[in-house]
Amino acid sequence: LLSDLRGYHGRKVLKSSKNALLVTKKEYLQKDWCKTEPLVQKIKEEGCLTRTVINRFCYGQCNSFYIPKNPKKRNRRRPSQEHEDEDQNGAAFKSCSFCKPKKFTWITVTLKCPNMVPQFRKKRIQRIKQCKCIATNFN
Amino acid sequence: LLSDLRGYHGRKVLKSSKNALLVTKKEYLQKDWCKTEPLVQKIKEEGCLTRTVINRFCYGQCNSFYIPKNPKKRNRRRPSQEHEDEDQNGAAFKSCSFCKPKKFTWITVTLKCPNMVPQFRKKRIQRIKQCKCIATNFN
Repeated sequence: LLSDLRGYHGRKVLKSSKNALLVTKKEYLQKDWCKTEPLVQKIKEEGCLTRTVINRFCYGQCNSFYIPKNPKKRNRRRPSQEHEDEDQNGAAFKSCSFCKPKKFTWITVTLKCPNMVPQFRKKRIQRIKQCKCIATNFN
Repeated sequence: LLSDLRGYHGRKVLKSSKNALLVTKKEYLQKDWCKTEPLVQKIKEEGCLTRTVINRFCYGQCNSFYIPKNPKKRNRRRPSQEHEDEDQNGAAFKSCSFCKPKKFTWITVTLKCPNMVPQFRKKRIQRIKQCKCIATNFN
């Protein structure tokens, strides 16, 4: 155990996974960001004139954490060795946020297709309105 | 289209999803971080003396992005309406990184259990050695 503590002099050692979760959520993980930026998309179709549409894309840095829970007390009934290990180590508080579209709209783009009948083609395009860090929780 | 461009004066509008991917990867997404911090865990078992172990937990802000691809040209065979929409909008470059354990070790903790036979219980604990932003790619 002493060797474990080496290298941690003067640093805060958190006393439980609950504390870790609290500290992680409150102190450090406030400044995540997720930008919504414009992007030109070309709408093409054979025999039609290409049109451009302004869509948006998302990029950023969102919070994530992985905090092991205290191992569970062993079950009274002795389970198989494999099962034990799983039980003692599978549990963790974990969360990962993803900078991705939060709001969409649908737009209809009409392409001119001079030599075709009819001379128009309609396309429905999903356009990103707003991006956001969206948390993905694992069970 | 003009209304789409409003609000983007003086800002760079990216001309394709490929450019967006390049810019996103090169310019902005370098400064992600994922910390490995110490955490005290209590190893408990009924009838045994509790021991503490230094484990680690992970937290940070990792890169993620979502960039729509240019819509595909429509298939010559006319598919069902529902299928079309899916085809035109399902495609995107997307990636989300998760600050989580990269390296583990296994340690064995021996608990003293004064009134039990045998007077010791061994527990195997998975200990986090190092955390890292690990990319999760979606198909």
